[in-house]
Formats: sequence, structure tokens, C-alpha cells
Amino acid sequence: MATVADYIDENMPRFREELLEFLRIPSVSARSEHRMDMSRAAEWLADRMREAGLDVSVEETDGLQIILGEYRGAGDDAPTVLLYGHYDVQPAEPLDEWTSPPFEPEVRDGKLFGRGSVDDKGQLYLHVKAIEAHMKVNGSLPVNVIVLAEGEEEVGSEHLMPFVKANRDRLACDYVVISDTTMVGEDVPTIGTSLRGLAYLEVHVRGPRTDLHSGSYGGAVVNPATALARIIASMHDDNWHATIDGFYDDVEAMDEYREKLKAVPFDDAGFRKDTGTTEVGEKGYTTPERLWIRPTVEVNGLLSGYTGEGAKTVLPAKAMAKISFRLVPAQNPDRIAELVEAHIRKVAPEGVEVEVQRLHGGNAWRATLGSELYTAAERALAAAWDREVVYAGEGGSIPIVPEFERVLGAPVLLMGFGLPGENAHAPDEWMSVENFEKGTRASARLWTELAR
Amino acid sequence: MATVADYIDENMPRFREELLEFLRIPSVSARSEHRMDMSRAAEWLADRMREAGLDVSVEETDGLQIILGEYRGAGDDAPTVLLYGHYDVQPAEPLDEWTSPPFEPEVRDGKLFGRGSVDDKGQLYLHVKAIEAHMKVNGSLPVNVIVLAEGEEEVGSEHLMPFVKANRDRLACDYVVISDTTMVGEDVPTIGTSLRGLAYLEVHVRGPRTDLHSGSYGGAVVNPATALARIIASMHDDNWHATIDGFYDDVEAMDEYREKLKAVPFDDAGFRKDTGTTEVGEKGYTTPERLWIRPTVEVNGLLSGYTGEGAKTVLPAKAMAKISFRLVPAQNPDRIAELVEAHIRKVAPEGVEVEVQRLHGGNAWRATLGSELYTAAERALAAAWDREVVYAGEGGSIPIVPEFERVLGAPVLLMGFGLPGENAHAPDEWMSVENFEKGTRASARLWTELAR
Repeated sequence: MATVADYIDENMPRFREELLEFLRIPSVSARSEHRMDMSRAAEWLADRMREAGLDVSVEETDGLQIILGEYRGAGDDAPTVLLYGHYDVQPAEPLDEWTSPPFEPEVRDGKLFGRGSVDDKGQLYLHVKAIEAHMKVNGSLPVNVIVLAEGEEEVGSEHLMPFVKANRDRLACDYVVISDTTMVGEDVPTIGTSLRGLAYLEVHVRGPRTDLHSGSYGGAVVNPATALARIIASMHDDNWHATIDGFYDDVEAMDEYREKLKAVPFDDAGFRKDTGTTEVGEKGYTTPERLWIRPTVEVNGLLSGYTGEGAKTVLPAKAMAKISFRLVPAQNPDRIAELVEAHIRKVAPEGVEVEVQRLHGGNAWRATLGSELYTAAERALAAAWDREVVYAGEGGSIPIVPEFERVLGAPVLLMGFGLPGENAHAPDEWMSVENFEKGTRASARLWTELAR
Repeated sequence: MATVADYIDENMPRFREELLEFLRIPSVSARSEHRMDMSRAAEWLADRMREAGLDVSVEETDGLQIILGEYRGAGDDAPTVLLYGHYDVQPAEPLDEWTSPPFEPEVRDGKLFGRGSVDDKGQLYLHVKAIEAHMKVNGSLPVNVIVLAEGEEEVGSEHLMPFVKANRDRLACDYVVISDTTMVGEDVPTIGTSLRGLAYLEVHVRGPRTDLHSGSYGGAVVNPATALARIIASMHDDNWHATIDGFYDDVEAMDEYREKLKAVPFDDAGFRKDTGTTEVGEKGYTTPERLWIRPTVEVNGLLSGYTGEGAKTVLPAKAMAKISFRLVPAQNPDRIAELVEAHIRKVAPEGVEVEVQRLHGGNAWRATLGSELYTAAERALAAAWDREVVYAGEGGSIPIVPEFERVLGAPVLLMGFGLPGENAHAPDEWMSVENFEKGTRASARLWTELAR
């Protein structure tokens, strides 16, 4: 009799073809013209989940559909795992920067290129295939499984937590597993230990009532673009340490963890290749520390005055910046937004008015290591890659991770199969074909390990 | 027999109607789709100059046409005046901010609204009408006159000085008169004593090779938008004094002139109304001093990263600023550009690359007062307004003014009829109807006064 692993190996070419089919549906949640594609993607995924052997329901929300796939056959003594992923993707623009069209996926050099390949269709679909393998080979799964796939992750997951709260009993589980992150490097199976939180602000600086001639008025009124530059520049010292009063109050030193981090095989050369620039950041910290355990102040956008070709001598009436802050555990996004707003008001020069809008916020998260969930994942990943697992932080934010833990009372495991340089949210997004295959095996193995 | 002044009074309604006709031609030199309109405007003006009694030729250049109107009948003993103006106008965008359409001029509250009304069609055309008045009433002018109207003032006057140099003999003159500036306030006839120079730069800051996810990479590479903000903020101290090494080396203290300036009835309330903000600038200087005798550092445009709606967590690959410097006499635009570039390279943080492009430059100018030209203008203006003339600086730049003096060896008189708040280069540009009328009378009188 064939094993689950044999089944996966034999059927892998078909799994890959199916994933390409999934990727051809342009399920861009941010654009209303893709509403039909969102439904198509939801139905396609629901059908595949049914074929895999799950009881599937497509749940309506006030926004886009949530797909639930359930298997309850492992019994009350077996653990229940909630597997979360998303079937929506980022907009593909700028289209002319893609080597192959974003929704005509193709494989080149072992990489599967296409919008949503790694974020998150590929990482979600490999779990569906692992379930199929168990069901086809054994007629059962070793654990109870709830697959929850949403369609609004790329637009803020507005309706997810209300749904989870309203269905708390149905979604009750022992563990939550999410594959929507990256490994530290190629061939380095990775478990995520932390996520950063986020406070995202938009700052508007207003000066003269209208754009003025920079000759006729320049020098005698405050230039809002200059004022905004001054505000932004005031947020760091020369060591790239943030200067906002109270910003680090809740940041833990994490000396022990910093010791452990030294053992993580962080790919400095890869980081330099991906970014195309030198590593520069807060003095006294390494690159992984700067990314995983230190908060940041980043400008995401700047706009003021004339930005077209040539010389226009305008003294702008206004200037705008989008400024966001990556946070670490215990930093509260609302509190940080307040501190930043106070800082901005303190440093804004006389003669301008400042408005601060809060666009988005989310808490940081730190894994509670050492549970059965983590030891099972360690074994499953190590088996798939034939290599020891590495524990690593993640610089990005997934605000629903701490929310899942809070609402469902179940620990979250971040078991990501992305790779550095994968271009998530950018042109030429790709997922490693090898990681799709090994990820499928690791997923299948995880259910077995969890049931031990 | 009617006098020149009577003729002007009687024919003023027609003069105004003709000006409206001139303003209906959208002679936007910056836009190639208006090439036909440029020719139409040139021909229209040439015809009116002929009707006024001038010998007119339309001169081809490598760019747009220059119109020359000549009157040599005053003889060798009479002075020759070159009158310069321009028949091109600024683009009218943003169109939706105009109360009445830019090329459908109309009079409201004593103001003639329309693109080009004050800059410079109205101010040019009043001179043509003054010439007409002399010619119709007396059959002659008291001085020899060369009217030179170009069509590229709003795009940098690229072909003007080559034309002037190539026609140095034909354009030889004793005085140059230009009406393309503003009076200090309503009912304050003004002679311009200075113009600021200009150095206009575009600064590009580049960091990562592509836009990065601000979570995955934020904190470990330099953000080019933050770097640019730091560069801009470094250009002033807390007293809004420029901090660029050597920037003030060639700036004269002008203590005597500052004493005289105290007597200029600068309209502080009007300035506040026009700008809609409080006066803030270099410490230790008044508003007219900041505008007329002090150099500036102004940001004209800023662009980086994501500037659309909502929160996009991008760490931008690049950031751009347009930064210009108004200069005072003796400051050299090329030298200033060099100093600024050196400053930028000095303060740019590690991890970014900086490129500085020079877009535009021009020298400042200071009038050589006390000549017959100025005393004649004083009398002409005082007669038209029944009020003493004020000598005032001008914050803007007209690079061709020092060029005219250099190439033709003739002093320039700036006799402007604009008013503060006239919205030159902005929506709802207007010229005071009263100033058009009094300006016509002053122009007619100037020729008489110059011939005394």
C-alpha cells in the first residue's frame, strides 16, 4: 500500500498544474472590477477542498466570502487544528515590470512566477494537497482540521475577526497554523518566532492658502515641504535611533534572545543582493535584530508641490507624508500613534498647520515556544528538508495572528515556505517549486506528528 | 486739438476689448498642441502694432517667433527705447480651480480675469496703445521705440538672447523698459530696484534597487525618503538661516538700503491675506528684506514611494526633490549649485546614492538708479497715479534683465503694473482694470518725459 509521502510524490505534477490554474484567477481584492474573479477563486478553492475530502461551506460576510473546510473525523481525543490562509492577492501593478504576465504563471529556474504564487495561494494550496493525500491514502486525517481561507487579507481582513468571533464555537481549536511567511534562506526550514506590529499614519502639513510663486513669496513664509522634511528628519538621531519621546518605553531589551539569534544562519549576502544596498540601521544591532526585535520609523510616501518634468518655481501650499512604525511586542499601536503625533506637534515649525491621520494599526506578536505544536512542526519540517529547523523572527506584520490567539485561545504556528527575494507585493512574485513540494510533505507530516 | 491723454481716455473701452481678444488666444508656449495659437497670437499682436503706427516684422528663431515693432522717426538726437514684453502665457492647469475659464476673460470687481492678463499680455499691450495714442494724435513719437515681444518667456527664453546678440546693431538703444512686475500695493506706483537670481536643482536619492516591503526590510537599510528629508532639513538652522557652507559669502549686508526700505509702504496685511499664513522667515529681517535682499532655499516639489489613498507598506527605492535657491546680486548661480551639491554630498547618510541635476539658473540684478530714465519714469508714474513713486525690490527672477544690460549696454527700467495677489502662474490670474488704464497713460507720458 502506498504511503502519504508516495501519494504526494506521484501526484506532484498534477498539484503544480492545479496551482497554476488557481494563479490564473486574478483575485485582486483591492479592485472592485475583480469582484467576479474573487467569487471564481472562492468557488474554485471550495471545489478543490471538497475533492480533497473536506466538508466545505462558503460563508458570506459583509465583505468577501470566507471558505471553511472541515474534517471532524479524528475524534474528540485528537487535537483540532485551524489552518488559516487567503485566496486574495495584491494588485499586480506596475504591469510592465513583470517578466511574464502576473496572471499567466510560468516556471523558470525552479521558481513559479505569478501574482499570489507565494502570497498566499501556493502556501495555502499545499495544505489542501497534504489533506488530500491523507484522505486518499488513509481515508482519514490524524487530527481534526478546519481550513479557513479568507479573501480580504490584502485589504486589511476587516471581516475576518468579526466572523471568527461570531463562530467561536465552530472554530474552537487547539492550534492555529499559518503559512504566509518566509524561511530564513534556501534549504533552511524556519519557524517564525515573532511578528512586528504596525502603526501607519498620514501626515498633512499646510502652509499658504494656495500654491505661491517661490520668487514673489519665498523666504517670507514657511514652506510646508521644508517643514515636513524637518519633521521627518527629527524622528531619528545620527545613529538611526528613534528620537520620539517614549517610543522605546515598552521595548524589551531581549538580551537572552539576542544571544540565541547569533546562531541563526542569517543570509547577509542574500540580504544585500535582495536590497541592492548596504546594510545600515540602528547602531548597536545586527541586521536580524533590526528586522525582528527593534521597532522602526519608515517613510512610505512623500508628496508636495510640482513633481513633473522641468523647473516650476512653486512654493507649495501643502505637503504629505505616509509614515509607518513597525512595533515589537508590548508596544501599543495607539499609544505609539499618540507619541508620534505629540512629537510632530512639538517639532512642527511656526507658520504651518499639521494634521495626523491614523490609517492602520496592529499589534506585534511573539510565539510561545516549547509546546507540542512546535515540537511537532520541528520534526515535520526537519523530515521534509532533512535539516534542523531554525527559529527566526519576521519583520512584517500579520495583525490577525495575535487576534487569533486572543479570540480562540489557541497558540499560532508560523510555518512559512516563502524565500527572501520572492517579490511578494512586487512585480515578478515567485514561489520556489521545491518549497511547494517540501511544504506539502511537511504539512502532511505535521498532522501525523501532532497526533502522536 | 485732442491731447494724447484725451485720446487714451476716449479709446479706453476699445483698448480693453482688444485686450480681451488678445487674451482669448491660448498662447501657451509650454504645450506643443498650442503651436498654432502661438502663431495666431504673434500675428494678432503684429497687426495691432502695425495699426499703432510701427514698422513691424515677425522674426523667425529656432523656436517661437519674435515680433519687432520699430519707430525711428524721432531722429538721432532723441533717445531710443527698447520695450520688452512677451505674448506667451503659462499653462492654465488646474482648470477646475478657475472661477471663469482661463481663455474666456471677464471683468469682475475691477479685475480682468484670464490667463496672461497681467503676465504679460495686459502689461505689454498697454504700451502698444500708448504708442498708438501718440501716433494718432501727433503722427509721431517723442522718442525712437523698438518693441520686442517674444513667445518663450514662460519656457526659459532660450532663443531671445541669441537673437538679441545677432541683432545687436538693430536693437541698439539707450534704455530698456520692461513691464512684467508688480507694484508694492494698490495705488502705489512702483519702480523695481532689484530682482533675485535663481539656481534650480533636482535631487535624486536612491537606496534599495527596488521598492521593498517596509516590514520585511524596514530598519536594516536606509530609507531614501528619510534620507532626502534629512538632506532638506539640514539646509536651514532654527532661525531659517541657510546652513550651506559659503552660501552667504557673496551676499552684501546692504545696511544703507535696509534703512531706506523702512520707508517703503509694504502691505503687511495684504501679504498675510494673499498667503493666508503668518510671516515666518530668516530671523533678523523684515518681510520685504526677506523677499528682496536675502537669498532663499525653497523646496518646490517632493515625491517618493506610495502617495495614493490608504496604507501601503512600501520602503521606497528612491526619492526626489526639486529645490531652488533665490539669489541676490553677486551670488553666482553656478557657484551656488556647486556649494549646494557639496553640502548634499556631505550630509547624505551612508547607504544612499545622490544625484544632483541643474535645471535652471539666472543672475540677480540691481537697478542703477538716478539716471534720466528713472527720473522720467518717476514723473510719468507720479502723473498717472497722482502719487509719489516708491522704489521696491522684487522677489522673483527675470534672468534676461541683467542679460539685456550686459548685451545692449543699456540700463533697464522695471515699471510693472501688476498687484499683489494677482495669481500670475496660478488659477484666476487677473490684472487690475485701473492699472491697465493708468499704465497706458504712464507709458504715453514716459516717452514725453524721456524726450524733454
